[in-house]
Amino acid sequence: MMTKAEYVESLRKLHFDLWMFGKKIENPVDNPVIRPSMNAFAATYELAEDPQYEDLMTVTSSLTGKKINRFTHLHQSADDLIKKVKMQRLMGQKTAACFQRCVGLDAANAVFSTTYETDEACNTKYHENFKKFWTMVQDNDYGVDGAMTDVKGDRSLSPSQQADPDLFLHVVERTADGIYVTGAKAHQTGYVNSHYVIVMPTISMREGDEDYAVSFACPTDAKGIKLILGRQSCDTRKLEEFSDIDVGNKVYGGHEVLVIFDRVFIPNDMIFLNGETQFAGMMVERFAGYHRQSYGGCKVGVGDVLIGATALAGEMAGSSKASHVKDKLIEMNHLNETLYCCGIACSSQGTKTKAGNYLIDLLLANVCKQNVTRFPYEIARLAQDLAGGIMVTQPSEADYRNPELRPYIEKYLKGVASVPTEKRMRVLRLIENMTMGTAAVGYLPESMHGAGSPQAQRIMISRQANMEMKKQLAKAIARID
Amino acid sequence: MMTKAEYVESLRKLHFDLWMFGKKIENPVDNPVIRPSMNAFAATYELAEDPQYEDLMTVTSSLTGKKINRFTHLHQSADDLIKKVKMQRLMGQKTAACFQRCVGLDAANAVFSTTYETDEACNTKYHENFKKFWTMVQDNDYGVDGAMTDVKGDRSLSPSQQADPDLFLHVVERTADGIYVTGAKAHQTGYVNSHYVIVMPTISMREGDEDYAVSFACPTDAKGIKLILGRQSCDTRKLEEFSDIDVGNKVYGGHEVLVIFDRVFIPNDMIFLNGETQFAGMMVERFAGYHRQSYGGCKVGVGDVLIGATALAGEMAGSSKASHVKDKLIEMNHLNETLYCCGIACSSQGTKTKAGNYLIDLLLANVCKQNVTRFPYEIARLAQDLAGGIMVTQPSEADYRNPELRPYIEKYLKGVASVPTEKRMRVLRLIENMTMGTAAVGYLPESMHGAGSPQAQRIMISRQANMEMKKQLAKAIARID
Amino acid sequence: MMTKAEYVESLRKLHFDLWMFGKKIENPVDNPVIRPSMNAFAATYELAEDPQYEDLMTVTSSLTGKKINRFTHLHQSADDLIKKVKMQRLMGQKTAACFQRCVGLDAANAVFSTTYETDEACNTKYHENFKKFWTMVQDNDYGVDGAMTDVKGDRSLSPSQQADPDLFLHVVERTADGIYVTGAKAHQTGYVNSHYVIVMPTISMREGDEDYAVSFACPTDAKGIKLILGRQSCDTRKLEEFSDIDVGNKVYGGHEVLVIFDRVFIPNDMIFLNGETQFAGMMVERFAGYHRQSYGGCKVGVGDVLIGATALAGEMAGSSKASHVKDKLIEMNHLNETLYCCGIACSSQGTKTKAGNYLIDLLLANVCKQNVTRFPYEIARLAQDLAGGIMVTQPSEADYRNPELRPYIEKYLKGVASVPTEKRMRVLRLIENMTMGTAAVGYLPESMHGAGSPQAQRIMISRQANMEMKKQLAKAIARID
Amino acid sequence: MMTKAEYVESLRKLHFDLWMFGKKIENPVDNPVIRPSMNAFAATYELAEDPQYEDLMTVTSSLTGKKINRFTHLHQSADDLIKKVKMQRLMGQKTAACFQRCVGLDAANAVFSTTYETDEACNTKYHENFKKFWTMVQDNDYGVDGAMTDVKGDRSLSPSQQADPDLFLHVVERTADGIYVTGAKAHQTGYVNSHYVIVMPTISMREGDEDYAVSFACPTDAKGIKLILGRQSCDTRKLEEFSDIDVGNKVYGGHEVLVIFDRVFIPNDMIFLNGETQFAGMMVERFAGYHRQSYGGCKVGVGDVLIGATALAGEMAGSSKASHVKDKLIEMNHLNETLYCCGIACSSQGTKTKAGNYLIDLLLANVCKQNVTRFPYEIARLAQDLAGGIMVTQPSEADYRNPELRPYIEKYLKGVASVPTEKRMRVLRLIENMTMGTAAVGYLPESMHGAGSPQAQRIMISRQANMEMKKQLAKAIARID
Repeated sequence: MMTKAEYVESLRKLHFDLWMFGKKIENPVDNPVIRPSMNAFAATYELAEDPQYEDLMTVTSSLTGKKINRFTHLHQSADDLIKKVKMQRLMGQKTAACFQRCVGLDAANAVFSTTYETDEACNTKYHENFKKFWTMVQDNDYGVDGAMTDVKGDRSLSPSQQADPDLFLHVVERTADGIYVTGAKAHQTGYVNSHYVIVMPTISMREGDEDYAVSFACPTDAKGIKLILGRQSCDTRKLEEFSDIDVGNKVYGGHEVLVIFDRVFIPNDMIFLNGETQFAGMMVERFAGYHRQSYGGCKVGVGDVLIGATALAGEMAGSSKASHVKDKLIEMNHLNETLYCCGIACSSQGTKTKAGNYLIDLLLANVCKQNVTRFPYEIARLAQDLAGGIMVTQPSEADYRNPELRPYIEKYLKGVASVPTEKRMRVLRLIENMTMGTAAVGYLPESMHGAGSPQAQRIMISRQANMEMKKQLAKAIARID
Repeated sequence: MMTKAEYVESLRKLHFDLWMFGKKIENPVDNPVIRPSMNAFAATYELAEDPQYEDLMTVTSSLTGKKINRFTHLHQSADDLIKKVKMQRLMGQKTAACFQRCVGLDAANAVFSTTYETDEACNTKYHENFKKFWTMVQDNDYGVDGAMTDVKGDRSLSPSQQADPDLFLHVVERTADGIYVTGAKAHQTGYVNSHYVIVMPTISMREGDEDYAVSFACPTDAKGIKLILGRQSCDTRKLEEFSDIDVGNKVYGGHEVLVIFDRVFIPNDMIFLNGETQFAGMMVERFAGYHRQSYGGCKVGVGDVLIGATALAGEMAGSSKASHVKDKLIEMNHLNETLYCCGIACSSQGTKTKAGNYLIDLLLANVCKQNVTRFPYEIARLAQDLAGGIMVTQPSEADYRNPELRPYIEKYLKGVASVPTEKRMRVLRLIENMTMGTAAVGYLPESMHGAGSPQAQRIMISRQANMEMKKQLAKAIARID
Repeated sequence: MMTKAEYVESLRKLHFDLWMFGKKIENPVDNPVIRPSMNAFAATYELAEDPQYEDLMTVTSSLTGKKINRFTHLHQSADDLIKKVKMQRLMGQKTAACFQRCVGLDAANAVFSTTYETDEACNTKYHENFKKFWTMVQDNDYGVDGAMTDVKGDRSLSPSQQADPDLFLHVVERTADGIYVTGAKAHQTGYVNSHYVIVMPTISMREGDEDYAVSFACPTDAKGIKLILGRQSCDTRKLEEFSDIDVGNKVYGGHEVLVIFDRVFIPNDMIFLNGETQFAGMMVERFAGYHRQSYGGCKVGVGDVLIGATALAGEMAGSSKASHVKDKLIEMNHLNETLYCCGIACSSQGTKTKAGNYLIDLLLANVCKQNVTRFPYEIARLAQDLAGGIMVTQPSEADYRNPELRPYIEKYLKGVASVPTEKRMRVLRLIENMTMGTAAVGYLPESMHGAGSPQAQRIMISRQANMEMKKQLAKAIARID
Repeated sequence: MMTKAEYVESLRKLHFDLWMFGKKIENPVDNPVIRPSMNAFAATYELAEDPQYEDLMTVTSSLTGKKINRFTHLHQSADDLIKKVKMQRLMGQKTAACFQRCVGLDAANAVFSTTYETDEACNTKYHENFKKFWTMVQDNDYGVDGAMTDVKGDRSLSPSQQADPDLFLHVVERTADGIYVTGAKAHQTGYVNSHYVIVMPTISMREGDEDYAVSFACPTDAKGIKLILGRQSCDTRKLEEFSDIDVGNKVYGGHEVLVIFDRVFIPNDMIFLNGETQFAGMMVERFAGYHRQSYGGCKVGVGDVLIGATALAGEMAGSSKASHVKDKLIEMNHLNETLYCCGIACSSQGTKTKAGNYLIDLLLANVCKQNVTRFPYEIARLAQDLAGGIMVTQPSEADYRNPELRPYIEKYLKGVASVPTEKRMRVLRLIENMTMGTAAVGYLPESMHGAGSPQAQRIMISRQANMEMKKQLAKAIARID
């Protein structure tokens, strides 16, 4: 396994065509806007080095028998699935941010089992390709991004109906050695901190969509890939002279990138799907399922910090004994733990795939996701309610560092006498950061595939199947038919 | 194990001092008001005879090595806890009612582990007493009730502060051979269908409360026990001449009893706690925890039937393709499955007690319970919304059976042409029964211990302990102190 | 105006073909099941006699200049609309039940303005017909029912597509003197307590639906009308020997009737619409609008009693000082007053129709209705939570009246020492009655027209119109186009 | 009345001791961070010049009989109160931001009536002082801020218990000519755009708090006042070279200021309260009441734009026909209009004060506020859900303006073919701005006075008074006592 230090060094060797604020970024590792996201990703290496977290953060590889980082593991049991969720909660607690390495893990587990079933049905060799690739990833402890969401253009049209064929990533040329692909994947989390990317289709496909039914891996800095970093709320605060307090969580963060593929070449042995339209849906559904499970861990860990910070802000303001404050903190915990229940439950009910790795219960993972689109908002609302207006109106750190203003700020932003004003400001900024800033994107999983997506429809279908049974029960009890 | 038929016969041998509507009930087994609850309880025997449910309904006893009904099992693993929840969901699906045998199961597991720890600390022999008693229960496959909730009088006063000392059940005399107890346990589910009752204290106790810190078992028809059956909505419909449709679910139901102990004698070997105030709270908390887990199974199974019935009612009215109908059914499923996630999660995270049986995760079980006080109401609201006004305004079955009225009712209560009107009426009555009638009591778990109970306070405390950790995380990330 | 006593006597002169529980009811006035609904209706007369409510309950007629009961008034100002809501809140507070006279009032105001506009467009004389009819109603202070909801059969089919043409009420024959109508109106509130009924179509109509676009008035006991009373939860409790406590609210209640028209003859001067399909929708929309406003008054008044009863139950149990009890009572009030805000707001923003009476703001009335489908459920949930399990498991009054049982019940259902047990039982039964019993039907306005109704669609359309403006605003601020 | 141009010029004459980002701001009018807030405030002048809004934006002064801006009006009727709400909704629609002039209006109406009653009781002359001051404000059409919220230090302590006496603003010296005051008012909205400030106490006072029971007006740039501007999310985007799109709503915004009073002298004729502790609470309650009403207008107008923008974003993405999209837009409207109902209702039920101006219904205004702490969050959640991930991950405008990147962004951020990409980016940024950025502070009214404030307690008390009546009703219906 790589150490954190080795990981950071390894990133310096990547050569991205990366742009931000209209300028090319030559050295993302040391860029103050990107660095916090790198730190959060790096924490997946750092905690794996820590003996106290060995059981959660590391595991024996099913491919090689070697000790590996659990973020590269193919889950071998329901217990593995539960440990994944617990690892994610731990990581969320440690970073209070998106640590970005889940998408690759989720992609790997989805592609591993889907390629197996594709090969079985289509006599292809994708599973072997993937196993070889993933063994290399495990051996080197690489960071891997998983790219699913196409930009999609007009959502009322299918890929082939779009005015511009590139609005869904697709094969533009097939050669004996491989394929050329063009298109773009939107809001890719952690891309710049990853060595490889696994690309998957974004929706189920039908006959005629063969060029869009494509999955593969490639180096993140492959020729023909152009990257534009997305804006975040408060992103430029990190560039300011005094920004330690103001950023709220200066050490850790996340980032999203628009990843543009312009005739990128993929050699045959890195291809995992190439025209077998009937398996696009399976890959999408399994990836989405794993990722919905992930939210039952990472968001809960982040929620833990938010609840703690809110409790702390209440103590610092002298309001922690008011009964409505206690009740709201209990409610925040209740919602956060309900989310955790969903993460644990879909894991506990996981089952073995034909390929041998474990798949979460898809229905319960959907339930997890639906709650992720609700509860974190309510938790954030309560946090803001308790933090009070000062959270969003306190002076800047630059004001605080100004000797003429500092005594006034020290004096008038004071809460309980025993707590230094600076500490109160830090905690309030942390809450602001977690409820109004960059962290919020992680709270938008519905948007991962967008409104009206086939995923959403599939939820409905799987539930309707379920409902047939329920109707039979109702009939039996009302004794009709 | 008893067969269903044997179970029913065994109940005929009990001699209760039982009252309902101001009259003594000599034969509860065949009483039309009580019979449905007996049927629901009996279903726990019936399904255990069915080979297809063998894995869920039966298990090998940890005490005797014999095959037993899982409703008498001391859970030996987290998997046992999960199977308990699944068995309860199955039972809920089969009866659409409260099947009443969970309280005894939950009481047994709580008393088993608490007596072990009491003995360890106080040099008592309660655990041996309990093991002997429970072995007898398993061997005979008895139905057992678990009685916790005292009537409690003035809730702002402790047991010993009450104007009447009997408002909490207590020891009124201690002899060499045993104790005499007086008091009352409120809304006891399934009491009349049980052979034995396990009595537990209702709250934590302090020094001075020794007489109230008492737990024991006795036959349900022990001398000195008087029973008054509680009223339910629509209870007398079961007595009407035409009641097949009108009852909604005539086969299955539930009942609650006010159980009055008037100097009931308990021999020494049936006593499980007798003055060790410091262990009252543990017994209460563990029983409550198991019971909160139970709701994550039984209510979900009942919810399955309600969702199915609502979907069926929509089809019968020709409205099932409207998008708002589909959305509401999906929402009902979402809420129901979230509840299930809580039941599964608190089971999956169960841990071994000192006595060797498994205890659910208490925090997640509390989360389960909090959601049970919310989601079933919303599911019922949506069910009523979709069922429409006709659910609560349709004519009685007696009208339907009247030859002069029947043609009009056939004609005007018709939905889609292919469905006979009687079937539609049955389904609508089932929904009425499940959302407005007797089933609703099961939707009131908060009331089990009442407003402002020590249980509620304990939730808060356990969460605050949790919050200390969360505050540390928040501090670390905001880097203060 | 009629006195209460005169009103009761006047009802005795009506000759209904009325059925309940399969039997013909010759004297509904003194029938214990129906009497409470009559009492609630009669309270609209009783309070109008009371000088302290003169300003709310009475008003000067716009038709005759005489003093009339406000329940027969054609609203002449926004202030009149507000007073209507306040009168309804008062009535809800006084009866804790549905007092049934709103439907006629709402029908009258809808028909008054729609007939005016129909005449203007179609050169008909319906407005004159209606004015004559309504002057007679005002002069005699008659109780009037408003009947809209058809039974509707298969909801995916239009009236003329139904297998049975009678599933929507329609004209079956036209003669020189009038029309014959056949069909059925479902769950008619207060029909048996009314002298006349105004019948309206249930949905918008299209060309080809001429026979279904019909509105008229007739005596409630007209030849050819058959009535079947709907079942309610606990309806037969009113027939029991000891039922004073058990009914919860024995004095007041409501009822719903299936009203079957079998070739009922309507003379020309009682017809208000007869084939002018383009005005069916207007009549429906305006009636529905007024009725949605009504809920912002009556349900709030009923809510007042429920909140008071819940607070009282808390005091009687000694739990009223617990902070969670206070918080829940505040939340109940908050939700109830929000509903009231909607009732007041749609009234305050009312506007004059062409005919001269005032129409509520339809959009805000829809908002009121949407909230009525949500908040009362949450209020009821909180009431049940605070009332506790004893509300649904307490013994029957017959048990309480039994001398052998009474001492036990007195003893063990006691709350705080100063409150007699019987009083506590009464309050708990009142809460049961209001949250689980007959009152609940009033909480189901969505079901009034059923799932997927044109009304529901119209809400959407009116809102989309509204949204055009909103999009323009958004565009302007983002400065595009 | 001033024109917009005159207003802007008038601000240039003010000399603030104003700081931002650690630096003194000499010219706030042209500062790009502050300018949008000035524009929003200026819109209150601009719309008053527009004949189409004359009825809402202007009114005849009750003090002078002259035509004045409604933002300086003392409400003379319930209709005036309703027009205030409609004016605020209009302003919200026009600016999609906080336009900051309500606090002064609300303060004026609260102080006008409170001084009258104080004079009546205490034989003081504050009402005359205030009338003279406010006549001058109306004649000059000044912008006025209302300052209530003290920084408050340790919220578990009263003003005089604080470690630092200045944590609540108070009189530090009394002279023959006036008083000297010291302290700080937190998050003052629009202060820098105002000519005068009305200062009020922040909580009810008791005997011993005389120095804290102080109210007065002074010029916003009075000697001894130091200002520090609060940070907002994304505040520095306005300073960036390419910021037209990125700001989302570059024209309009808001600001909050920490206003520090360091021995500011207030002459006698500008004092409105000075030691009469018993009237501090009345002033606070009335100001808070008016301000809660305000939210029922301004937030609704802002909500209109957000709903429109969300609908527009859906159309641009081709998703507007999906049923879940329509349902969510309807829900957003429903919540927004419910808020409006509260604003209208508390106005409609307003009553005349002793001083002659009109006061909103305080209970219903509290209800309005409670909903403001809930619904806008849910509206924002739904807006973000529908806008999708691209809202928070799209590239910066600087990227878009870069010729090398622009073709890629044009291509891949395209939605439906007919809409230019830039327009889509603008709309998405507008939604980001309204849901994640500076606008959010306006959504935090609970924080205005902070957790556990006396205001919050007062709500409870007023409701409990209300509940006494409700209990009487419940008792009467259950016929006890």
